[in-house]
Amino acid sequence: MITYEAKLGWTPNDEENSLIAEAIGKVVEERETGKAGYFNLPDDSRMIVTEVNAYAASCETIKKSDTVAVIGVGGSSLGTQAIEGMLRHKYPHAKRMLFFENPDPIELSQKFSQINRKKTIFLVVSKSGMTVETMAIFKAVIGHFSLDLKGKDHDRVIAITDDGSPLCRFADHYGLKTYTIPKNVGVRFSVLSASGIVPLTLAGYDTCSLLEGGSKMVKRFFGGEEEHVAIKAAFLAVHKEQYPINLLFGYGNAFAAFNRWYKQLWAESLGKIDRCGNRTGLTPMGQIGTVDQHSILQLILQGPGDKTVTFMKIEDFENGLKIPKVPLEMIPHGEIVNNYTFNELINIECDAVREAVSEAGIPTDTILFDRLSEANVGETILYFELLTSLIGAMLRIHTYEQPGDEPVERHIIEKLQQGKH
Amino acid sequence: MITYEAKLGWTPNDEENSLIAEAIGKVVEERETGKAGYFNLPDDSRMIVTEVNAYAASCETIKKSDTVAVIGVGGSSLGTQAIEGMLRHKYPHAKRMLFFENPDPIELSQKFSQINRKKTIFLVVSKSGMTVETMAIFKAVIGHFSLDLKGKDHDRVIAITDDGSPLCRFADHYGLKTYTIPKNVGVRFSVLSASGIVPLTLAGYDTCSLLEGGSKMVKRFFGGEEEHVAIKAAFLAVHKEQYPINLLFGYGNAFAAFNRWYKQLWAESLGKIDRCGNRTGLTPMGQIGTVDQHSILQLILQGPGDKTVTFMKIEDFENGLKIPKVPLEMIPHGEIVNNYTFNELINIECDAVREAVSEAGIPTDTILFDRLSEANVGETILYFELLTSLIGAMLRIHTYEQPGDEPVERHIIEKLQQGKH
Repeated sequence: MITYEAKLGWTPNDEENSLIAEAIGKVVEERETGKAGYFNLPDDSRMIVTEVNAYAASCETIKKSDTVAVIGVGGSSLGTQAIEGMLRHKYPHAKRMLFFENPDPIELSQKFSQINRKKTIFLVVSKSGMTVETMAIFKAVIGHFSLDLKGKDHDRVIAITDDGSPLCRFADHYGLKTYTIPKNVGVRFSVLSASGIVPLTLAGYDTCSLLEGGSKMVKRFFGGEEEHVAIKAAFLAVHKEQYPINLLFGYGNAFAAFNRWYKQLWAESLGKIDRCGNRTGLTPMGQIGTVDQHSILQLILQGPGDKTVTFMKIEDFENGLKIPKVPLEMIPHGEIVNNYTFNELINIECDAVREAVSEAGIPTDTILFDRLSEANVGETILYFELLTSLIGAMLRIHTYEQPGDEPVERHIIEKLQQGKH
Repeated sequence: MITYEAKLGWTPNDEENSLIAEAIGKVVEERETGKAGYFNLPDDSRMIVTEVNAYAASCETIKKSDTVAVIGVGGSSLGTQAIEGMLRHKYPHAKRMLFFENPDPIELSQKFSQINRKKTIFLVVSKSGMTVETMAIFKAVIGHFSLDLKGKDHDRVIAITDDGSPLCRFADHYGLKTYTIPKNVGVRFSVLSASGIVPLTLAGYDTCSLLEGGSKMVKRFFGGEEEHVAIKAAFLAVHKEQYPINLLFGYGNAFAAFNRWYKQLWAESLGKIDRCGNRTGLTPMGQIGTVDQHSILQLILQGPGDKTVTFMKIEDFENGLKIPKVPLEMIPHGEIVNNYTFNELINIECDAVREAVSEAGIPTDTILFDRLSEANVGETILYFELLTSLIGAMLRIHTYEQPGDEPVERHIIEKLQQGKH
């Protein structure tokens, strides 16, 4: 179960209520017309889970593997990493997941050295099927591990991409196992499509429960039961000049990769030129408690008041590690932590910071997990996706496009062609 | 060697030149009066390197160890992590470094399971000598590994703290080896003090070269040879309303921990109430290229124009990993990356993005490393510290304090005392 608490100090007026109604209407329309398809993933992807599990049970290469290597960048990797980061500790026997996302020679060399090719399944994930970095890394993987795609490594490589994409055609040519991503699902909204569900299911995660959590959020939201999502969206959209930055402050290292996923979702979806030709958007920041109390809190409390803060808190870490009563003579307060669990300590600190930030007049809200369950993780993903769609509707922007990136990608291609040796 | 390039599209006018001169004067004064002490660390800490090396050569426990565990949070950990992150790949035989920084029960349990107590040196790092999280983790470490501080584990634990601090008195009581941090060095400026130099030297890093790089920057700056630092500081200070966010975009995973260090340095130093009682400051963001081109670039290019971007680029990764000529039939541009090294690919992308961002009218600058050498890393640390001091002087704030954090820390102590069971 997740509880959503908000201390925004704000109630929408009539005009703002119209904005809310209009944005909800727009999102309902996006769903009904199929302009955006991510709403259906929690239900539709169950078939993928069944299919992947059946395939994995019949495939010796998968059965013998202990590592799932995901070759993909941005939306083809961050969501999977986010889910793995929040749930990994519950799966000591799951296959290891390794993410190849940066064409950085040092990083790639290190990752290569960690791989036993005979025990690894390689997933190449690219919605467009032609992402330059992904293709370059894929080539290096094929070359480094001498993968024989037609022969003995035929079922060691799986493609995840749009139906009919260049990668899809390539995979067809070699007869590689391929899973497709629905055309109307943008890459940064694609984690619950084959993009995330195939690698996580192969690794051994309970993706059914994950999807159920997402499904519940979709049903409740479109059933009018999660009004707070639209109110928060409206608060952020209406106050975007006053609070241009939303800081996601997750208490627990489990949120580190989730922060990166959130930053991509928020930045690429909301940083846009609006209908009137104005540059608009909200800037995401991601921090981890308690560590970042010692880095970012001073700025939040006394710096320019340009941030809203969203806390993520885990009630029950399902881990009873205690602070033992070891005497630390001469250290003031050295004894006050005795016999607390770390679970209690991290949450006492979270509460103290939430109170301090709120008392400083800064709008806050909290996403309170009763625990890190698969269903809670699925629900949170949908929560942030819906929130993003609603803010996008309120800002009157094209939430699902990324027109700024495309000229840069072309420029990169040109440079590569010019520099060809 | 590092080259600093700026495309700020700005030349200071007379008034701004006065601001620059005044700020440099203030930093010179901070150095001469000893108000801030970090300027002297590159020279003063050489003695620590000599001392640590001599001690390590004589200590069987250290000689037999393969892991240096650093227990510390914020400034007592981030700088060491930053340096390790940039240099680790050059030290395949250095001792492993493990950082205990978050009182997160899941994270701590995982780290505990990675430690062989007989082969580990534990460094407890806290400038105040009473940081709650550090003390709690230190207790758990003592308890979990049954460390006998008076007996057999006497030289397995080293304290790094202020002279006379509670931790210092504790260490004296047990006769533990202790290194002190100069009083006039703030914790977030302390990486080149014992705080970072002891763990890195023990692990086997060439900290002499690191300090030399820092020393060179200090000498050049105070010799008037690094004028660009103050000009950049002035640009950021003068335009803080227009560009409240500085985004550090490091091309290479080696910069991931450095980004965290920079964020702390910037946020805690510059987020302040100024002399006139106004909340002021600059917000730091840290991203990694090329991966974050797929997450943050759209926001930079088309979102609100509230960011300056500082690129960090490595000319020579000293790694020749190549993209092999593996045919990817049917994938457009699939062949254009053939025979490039990843070093070339990541830098071609970096250049394309730098050009695109600059052409969009966004102020940029680039810190160009010829390679990731110890001296370059040391220089960069001083560069960012000096830049921070200069901006702080220009904003007329107390750069070296963190008054916002202190009431929160007291509040945490109160809550812990109240909840005591």
